[in-house]
Amino acid sequence: MSAADKKTEWPMGFRSAGVAAGVKRDGSLDMALIVSDRAASAAGVFTTNQVCAAPVKVCRAHLEQPVVRAIVMNSGVANACTGSAGMVSAEAMAAGMASELGCLPEEVLVCSTGKIGPQLPMEAIGGGVSMLSAAAAADQLEQTSRAMMTTDTRPKAAMRDVDVKGVRVRLTGLAKGAGMIEPNMATMLAFVTTDAAVEAVALQAVLKGAVDRSFNRITVDGDQSTNDSVLMLANGASGVVLEEGSESWAGFVAAVESLCFELAMMIVHDGEGADRFVTVLVEGAESDAAADAAARAVANSLLNKTAWAGTFPDWGRIMDAIGYSAARVDETLVRIWYGETLAVEGGVQAATAMETLVEAVSERELLIRIGLGLGSGEAVVYTCNCTEEYVRINF
Amino acid sequence: MSAADKKTEWPMGFRSAGVAAGVKRDGSLDMALIVSDRAASAAGVFTTNQVCAAPVKVCRAHLEQPVVRAIVMNSGVANACTGSAGMVSAEAMAAGMASELGCLPEEVLVCSTGKIGPQLPMEAIGGGVSMLSAAAAADQLEQTSRAMMTTDTRPKAAMRDVDVKGVRVRLTGLAKGAGMIEPNMATMLAFVTTDAAVEAVALQAVLKGAVDRSFNRITVDGDQSTNDSVLMLANGASGVVLEEGSESWAGFVAAVESLCFELAMMIVHDGEGADRFVTVLVEGAESDAAADAAARAVANSLLNKTAWAGTFPDWGRIMDAIGYSAARVDETLVRIWYGETLAVEGGVQAATAMETLVEAVSERELLIRIGLGLGSGEAVVYTCNCTEEYVRINF
Repeated sequence: MSAADKKTEWPMGFRSAGVAAGVKRDGSLDMALIVSDRAASAAGVFTTNQVCAAPVKVCRAHLEQPVVRAIVMNSGVANACTGSAGMVSAEAMAAGMASELGCLPEEVLVCSTGKIGPQLPMEAIGGGVSMLSAAAAADQLEQTSRAMMTTDTRPKAAMRDVDVKGVRVRLTGLAKGAGMIEPNMATMLAFVTTDAAVEAVALQAVLKGAVDRSFNRITVDGDQSTNDSVLMLANGASGVVLEEGSESWAGFVAAVESLCFELAMMIVHDGEGADRFVTVLVEGAESDAAADAAARAVANSLLNKTAWAGTFPDWGRIMDAIGYSAARVDETLVRIWYGETLAVEGGVQAATAMETLVEAVSERELLIRIGLGLGSGEAVVYTCNCTEEYVRINF
Repeated sequence: MSAADKKTEWPMGFRSAGVAAGVKRDGSLDMALIVSDRAASAAGVFTTNQVCAAPVKVCRAHLEQPVVRAIVMNSGVANACTGSAGMVSAEAMAAGMASELGCLPEEVLVCSTGKIGPQLPMEAIGGGVSMLSAAAAADQLEQTSRAMMTTDTRPKAAMRDVDVKGVRVRLTGLAKGAGMIEPNMATMLAFVTTDAAVEAVALQAVLKGAVDRSFNRITVDGDQSTNDSVLMLANGASGVVLEEGSESWAGFVAAVESLCFELAMMIVHDGEGADRFVTVLVEGAESDAAADAAARAVANSLLNKTAWAGTFPDWGRIMDAIGYSAARVDETLVRIWYGETLAVEGGVQAATAMETLVEAVSERELLIRIGLGLGSGEAVVYTCNCTEEYVRINF
């Protein structure tokens, strides 16, 4: 759903812009800015890949000081594996934006997404920074989210309003990413803003928790991009100060989680070439970690992903994947459901009619529930199928 | 290369057969027998999948006694996830074959490959067992290897002769499997025979070592089938007794390894839908285990597999995969070569002309060499690319 469809708007005190700076050769939108009119507290969650992009390193450094004014980003070039020249470019991109906005370079966070290897075209970036500064406005949200896209087929934006003692606190987020198994051209980026005032340490904890229950649930194969970043800014423009443990805190935390979850689901549903969306729920594992390992083994199995392009209830591929996962499995205790339909009981084919199974497995939004019967560990992972179109896109 | 092309023949004292018993509905060959005229010592290496097929359990049990006469197998149905009924069927298949051959049931090893879930059609299996017994002959090797095929496009057989003080010892092996990322319909099976006499414990050690350096080097994603089995029989019909540590031992061990390696390469080259073959060599890792983790991360990355369907030197996807692997990586030390052509130096694009890189990465047999610059750990993994055809086959 596009930002326009939902009338998604920025919280108070935020403006944004999306421009075509010439980083992408086809002339499409390729730079974006989100700026707060006042100093904001900030939080960030980044890729754990040992090979991480220059802008990720710059963000980590800039977040060591307390105040952030803006996020500037480009699509088309990832500025990853670019050495010290790449670091100079990322710092220059932040410094250029800071100069336009009249703030310190370290008050600007910087992101890139696109091809790994090439250096940023700094002439285009420099021009883009000026254009962004001139174009920034409160009504440019959709243009901004479009400028973030690489192989995405649609922009991704979501909004939550939270009532805090009669005052509206707003949360607005943008994301990009098309498929969780695409760490190169389709890095996952998300930017969340709010007009509440939240102290940085608490903000970081809230964002980390929300990411663990949303974006990290769709990183189905551990394939983490060199550039994955989720950033959050809280500028306090609503006049509402939210403190950890206060009466309104839980509602705010829930709104951040719900917003991140909606953005994460938008990414899965825009999976490259995908036309089926699969929730893999594992329960009855020895531990939550074991359940997670089993769920990811199924979700990441290319054999399962290709099976979901058809309509045959190929539950043997699920048995196989949980069997080689790190989770302990006793096959005689395993039960598997497609939605509400029992397919496997005691590790063997259940007495369910084939037509019923075919119907159950043909759902465009497919829930696969796997009971291991060993304990109370539980985990859920969201994924999509793998079609010939995926291979064409990444060819 | 088919068995016929290489004039592959059995060692002395072995006969075999391949028949169409009606397990596969299309009437093609679906049962095979390899029988030794005399008692043979035996060894086996099996899937480590916790969900393992009934025939794997039966083989493990039968190998607890010292003498084996035959291997009987079927393709089309895997007899996996079939519960106690499946165990009864696997035991009955071995017992039926033993009765035909006049030996004990536990002297027969049994394998199945094909669809997970369905029970073995025991009437067809019973008929097949009689047909195999009647058809078994020394010149039926190609027919036998054809009966093992599922999605394989060609039979796989190889032979080695070793001279032991003027006496010829022969090693002959058959394999099936089409793609290392296909644990369901294309279980990997291999059967190795020799007319040397080798004591069972030593035979097991030789086979395990050979499998680790061949078949286990192509299990690129840890996707282990429920049915993967490598079996070896040594019947002593040549009159040559080989003892561990004897003068001729090293030559025999080398021949087993070389035979298994040839069969493993046949499997990679018959990878489903694949048209490019990739050797991923990692060196300079902190340990061999770290090198193995890095090599498998690259070989198993769907993004890399799809990149290898094209001819663009997308080394960023390699950097990304090693970065999220369990191996320690310092990106500033990384070097990557396509064949002899340097693509990455110090973690960034090397000063090699793009045309040169494109040419290097377009090799049908592609060597990717990755230097981590951290130590002396080394590992190699053999894989193939992922094309749209793979998705069509597994759809």
